Amino acid sequence: MEIIKDLPEIFDEFEDKKKQSFLKVKEYKEKQIPIIGAYCSFFPREIAVAMGAIPVGLCSSANETVELAETVLPKNVCPLIKSSYGYAISDRCPYFHFADLVVGETTCDGKKKMYELMSEFKEVYVMELPNTQSEGGLRFWREEIIRFKEFLEEYFQVVITENDIRRAIVSQNKRREALKRFYGLMKLEPVPMSGLELGKVLYGSKYQFGQEEMTKELNELSDRILEEYEKGRQLEKRPRILITGCPMGEDTNKIVEAIENNGGVVVGFENCTGANAVERMVDEDDPDVYGAIARKYFSIGCAIMTPNNNRIHLLGEMIDDYHADGVVEMILSGCHSVEMESISVKNFVNEEKHLPYLAVVTDYSKGDVGQLNTRLAAFVEMIRK
Amino acid sequence: MEIIKDLPEIFDEFEDKKKQSFLKVKEYKEKQIPIIGAYCSFFPREIAVAMGAIPVGLCSSANETVELAETVLPKNVCPLIKSSYGYAISDRCPYFHFADLVVGETTCDGKKKMYELMSEFKEVYVMELPNTQSEGGLRFWREEIIRFKEFLEEYFQVVITENDIRRAIVSQNKRREALKRFYGLMKLEPVPMSGLELGKVLYGSKYQFGQEEMTKELNELSDRILEEYEKGRQLEKRPRILITGCPMGEDTNKIVEAIENNGGVVVGFENCTGANAVERMVDEDDPDVYGAIARKYFSIGCAIMTPNNNRIHLLGEMIDDYHADGVVEMILSGCHSVEMESISVKNFVNEEKHLPYLAVVTDYSKGDVGQLNTRLAAFVEMIRK
Repeated sequence: MEIIKDLPEIFDEFEDKKKQSFLKVKEYKEKQIPIIGAYCSFFPREIAVAMGAIPVGLCSSANETVELAETVLPKNVCPLIKSSYGYAISDRCPYFHFADLVVGETTCDGKKKMYELMSEFKEVYVMELPNTQSEGGLRFWREEIIRFKEFLEEYFQVVITENDIRRAIVSQNKRREALKRFYGLMKLEPVPMSGLELGKVLYGSKYQFGQEEMTKELNELSDRILEEYEKGRQLEKRPRILITGCPMGEDTNKIVEAIENNGGVVVGFENCTGANAVERMVDEDDPDVYGAIARKYFSIGCAIMTPNNNRIHLLGEMIDDYHADGVVEMILSGCHSVEMESISVKNFVNEEKHLPYLAVVTDYSKGDVGQLNTRLAAFVEMIRK
Repeated sequence: MEIIKDLPEIFDEFEDKKKQSFLKVKEYKEKQIPIIGAYCSFFPREIAVAMGAIPVGLCSSANETVELAETVLPKNVCPLIKSSYGYAISDRCPYFHFADLVVGETTCDGKKKMYELMSEFKEVYVMELPNTQSEGGLRFWREEIIRFKEFLEEYFQVVITENDIRRAIVSQNKRREALKRFYGLMKLEPVPMSGLELGKVLYGSKYQFGQEEMTKELNELSDRILEEYEKGRQLEKRPRILITGCPMGEDTNKIVEAIENNGGVVVGFENCTGANAVERMVDEDDPDVYGAIARKYFSIGCAIMTPNNNRIHLLGEMIDDYHADGVVEMILSGCHSVEMESISVKNFVNEEKHLPYLAVVTDYSKGDVGQLNTRLAAFVEMIRK
């Protein structure tokens, strides 16, 4: 007989997936299943999945390794880079430890150089991502995806067929559809769960390796949430906050907590934790699998792109679909791309969407929790009035 | 009768060229000669010169506009970006004011976003520079150069022929040869001038518009220096410092002063103020003019490239050719690319060249002059011992 779990218990289980999967990744390793680690949403997972490898997100969101990284890296680079590099040099991330290969992309200035430094002690393959979402850039990126496939074939001595890739596209789309359906539940008014619960699942799902298992779990969770919603599990009406900016998770949950402990609710993440990386599917009907994958990833509205119209477009859509009452931008201290772009994002939110906007520059430490509470409480209060 | 000027007077005249040319740029404007402004060494001057336009370096190296820029931009972006943007919004740079067009390149995170912000009040054209000096990247950059040419033809309603470009290549190579010959004089032991004098000419020459005039002036200056050198105008023997890192000029001359006031001499600039942008010529014999221009600029060893082997290569060559006793890296505070890369540069200088290396993180203010003096005096003293 299956024990029926409470929803909060399920949310916590998702949050724990990162730790639970430590052993799994070791098992894969023992079975000689290749493990390919990456840090970024631009990583075309389909190619790794097509060869039968396990794609895994590498540790990058906790403060614990920042100090160590600062003994090598400049203090003023963003905490995401410092945390990632600190995990790598201290060998404290099991996913990094067991990864046969780390795949990087030429995204921001700091990451480009971080991959160079990492390549001194780990096998690192860097994909060159163009800076502009032009037709020429897209062609270039498609070539990069083919080059990556060829590298994997050579490096792991395997053959990756277009049919393998096609199957991977279908499985990854299912995964994305399940995620999209799940976070899309926050369009409901009132919301069926808190933003912290939403975040636990989104973050945890990065560490659920079985693709079909995860899709199934997520869909069951969504069904369950809807079922309980109809029975009355609904949060009281609160100012609805959409989050944008840098990726979140673990130590930056303090932002979500500061919003929700002060009367607001986070209805969505437009950033790489949420919709930005998931929203668009790979076209399954495109006879050109590489072009289809290239177009999906190349459309990600990351601040390293210039101009970054896709971000503004998605942000606008989400503001409408999620009935946002305000936008909070989380900027990791030292992330020039996002911080500089926040000037235009603020203008868009204020002037075109006529909504309040607040930018919060922070890092992974707990030092600013008090200040965050004050600022975000005032922001939520202003919206309520 | 021509008055024979002293060398120091000539050096000062070069330093003053930026101011002297304010009027000239206005004259060009009145004669309806197009003026094309740029900030970066990657800007392919030849294409602008080929259409009969005046390429001009835009103001970016003084502290005076930083504070104003900080009312809009994040404080932690580098002073070069803040200075540039501050000049632009305050209309205090005559070159920016009179420029018909500003050409940017997708170099670092901050500049990419700066160009977006500038394009709100100025005509800005951004060239997409790849992140990796690969064959594919080179092909892409060659296409970007052609696209730029086509944009200029459309925008200014002109026709730019390959012969125009070929002539521009020859004139720009002459300019570069003259610069190279000039700064190459610092290979002499003892040196024929101070690093401050060297810097005055290098910086000032960016504002000398007549290409042939400048080539002539520079060559005459080099002749004159050699002539006086033989007559005994030589600096006493001092620790020879090679500068690398971010571009310098105006308010960062404090670094050169701190080295030279404390007994050292700056023998060269490996950065964009000196050799990095000049050293390599455009191949005049290449039947493919676009490919030839692409290869020259694409080889620039800028820290935004990953990996940046060309920088290490040039640095190594200059250490040998200029008989450097030590390397000082000037890092503009907030320049993640250069600051992160400094880890590998230090290793190279220390371990492969067996020379002392010092990294100095600074900005355009005078706040750290005392500290710079202390640190650089100690560095020079250590070398002397």
